[in-house]
Amino acid sequence: MEEPRIMLAHGGGGSLMNDLIRNLFIRYFANPVLSEQSDSAVVRLPGDRISFTTDSFVVDPIFFPGGDIGKLAVCGTLNDLAVSGARPLYLSVSFILEEGLLLSDLERIVQSMAETVAQAGVSIVAGDTKVVPKGKGDKVFITTTGLGFLPEEFVEISSGNTIRPGDIILVNGSLGDHGIAVLLQRESFQFHSSIQSDCADLYSVIREVLEVCPTVRFMRDATRGGLATVLCEVAEKRRFGIELDEEQIPVHPAVAEACEMLGMDPLYIANEGKVVLVVPEKDAKKVLEVMRNHPLGSNAAWVGRVTGEYPGKVIMKTKLGGTRWIDYLTGDQLPRIC
Amino acid sequence: MEEPRIMLAHGGGGSLMNDLIRNLFIRYFANPVLSEQSDSAVVRLPGDRISFTTDSFVVDPIFFPGGDIGKLAVCGTLNDLAVSGARPLYLSVSFILEEGLLLSDLERIVQSMAETVAQAGVSIVAGDTKVVPKGKGDKVFITTTGLGFLPEEFVEISSGNTIRPGDIILVNGSLGDHGIAVLLQRESFQFHSSIQSDCADLYSVIREVLEVCPTVRFMRDATRGGLATVLCEVAEKRRFGIELDEEQIPVHPAVAEACEMLGMDPLYIANEGKVVLVVPEKDAKKVLEVMRNHPLGSNAAWVGRVTGEYPGKVIMKTKLGGTRWIDYLTGDQLPRIC
Repeated sequence: MEEPRIMLAHGGGGSLMNDLIRNLFIRYFANPVLSEQSDSAVVRLPGDRISFTTDSFVVDPIFFPGGDIGKLAVCGTLNDLAVSGARPLYLSVSFILEEGLLLSDLERIVQSMAETVAQAGVSIVAGDTKVVPKGKGDKVFITTTGLGFLPEEFVEISSGNTIRPGDIILVNGSLGDHGIAVLLQRESFQFHSSIQSDCADLYSVIREVLEVCPTVRFMRDATRGGLATVLCEVAEKRRFGIELDEEQIPVHPAVAEACEMLGMDPLYIANEGKVVLVVPEKDAKKVLEVMRNHPLGSNAAWVGRVTGEYPGKVIMKTKLGGTRWIDYLTGDQLPRIC
Repeated sequence: MEEPRIMLAHGGGGSLMNDLIRNLFIRYFANPVLSEQSDSAVVRLPGDRISFTTDSFVVDPIFFPGGDIGKLAVCGTLNDLAVSGARPLYLSVSFILEEGLLLSDLERIVQSMAETVAQAGVSIVAGDTKVVPKGKGDKVFITTTGLGFLPEEFVEISSGNTIRPGDIILVNGSLGDHGIAVLLQRESFQFHSSIQSDCADLYSVIREVLEVCPTVRFMRDATRGGLATVLCEVAEKRRFGIELDEEQIPVHPAVAEACEMLGMDPLYIANEGKVVLVVPEKDAKKVLEVMRNHPLGSNAAWVGRVTGEYPGKVIMKTKLGGTRWIDYLTGDQLPRIC
């Protein structure tokens, strides 16, 4: 017997769609708000200042070492909330399914999302499903939107407006794991690799950081475009310079090796469980210690500093003792890495 | 010279993506929150009770008589907020673009979205863009998520928990326009048709209704699955019966004709500017009058009533004097109508 697959009628608004919603989404994402099946979720917030963020996920393949598109779609949006200083509360999820997708694959993804939101203590309260004909999509695309409560004291973290020369740049661990894990999985490279995506919900480590250092100047998760792109944006926006120290930038040996073989630079590779922090120098050691004591920060590192020199630019002291400018990537990045 | 098109690198997190965001999205959607280009938008709300809703839009074709995928994506989500009794405030927008999409088509869509949000008085404060290779998507998919402020007095509107026998069912105008307009455009039917999508932001007419009748029992926009599906859901959930009067159901003659030719039933066809209201009988005339005086309600009609008989079922008195059961559609609906 053939395995059940998504059909166009699953997106048609009729009884098949109803079955899918009840037997899959409501079953796994179970919560009273979603069960209402209203067009809008009605929720209350602990205050009137919120963080609000959205991302679409089109990663290929949909299952990869260390995660899948569902876990990624949940963590990615929760992390965007967490790095703004917010406490993540609610998610909406919208699926664009390709006709022919195995229902068992969809269930595996939905299960993975359900586990991730349960661990994070947030609720998926609104959703939508569309189906496109075979060849007009690619298995499954997921768009998640997140709502978090933002305490007043953290309101400037996402803008970076308080960054100043002398501040220290930290990351919570090794760079490039996600992008390389997905790439190697996709291309079916012949060499055995132990590289896993770092896909993770960062709120727990960020919360501990904010407890010891409520004056964190800026946080951003280093996804598409990697660490380099985050720092280029900061330098350009705040008109300060940034000095990186290549020696201090944590990269797994297997990732470094893969990057060398592929002619890629880990600075530009996407991460899905890495936060870049800018903190006052006096707090840097304390923050580093907190991160290193957390499972998501054991390889946390002090990678650079903000400077009044060369405004708008990022410069890196290389391992060989030279220096080089770090700029936005102009050419092709890895496509469909998130 | 070839016209500029979307390339994979537009989604890569590098400088091309940056250009697209600045020269297109930020330019058209211009507002201070979006211009921050943070991962999360930081916004304040007039209170702590909100409506939150998401929808993906995959309509084919992306331009159709009376609208386009951009206008649809904005109106669809604003309407989901409005029918819950909320005042729409903020939107997020996420694009999944297919490599090769004409930049001029994307600009036309973005412009249309910008006009629609400006008219509605809401702001697009967060966004995302992904690009998939040619043949792995279909021009453009848009996911919008909306946030609205929900006054306490309207908190039960989206649940329908206050519906009771004797209540009257109203719609603000003719049914099936959107679905048929898109279908005829897609299939390049040879007969000339004047049918336009009813795609519209309904908040202005709903606000006027709530002013004269704050005890509206329930509202829902009749999108995928049409009026029939909305009423089946209400009957099933509340365990009341619903009696429809076919004679009173407004359908444009051109839509009725097209439906007859195509063997379709306008009751099941998607609308994008139609709200189904359940109101106390004593208020029905007043609400009807308010709607008929509004440009989006000139063909508003009294189409049925809630009854204590046949719980969970919808029955229709036909034009020929008979009756028939109205059930969920089981087979294929029109795919990609929204």
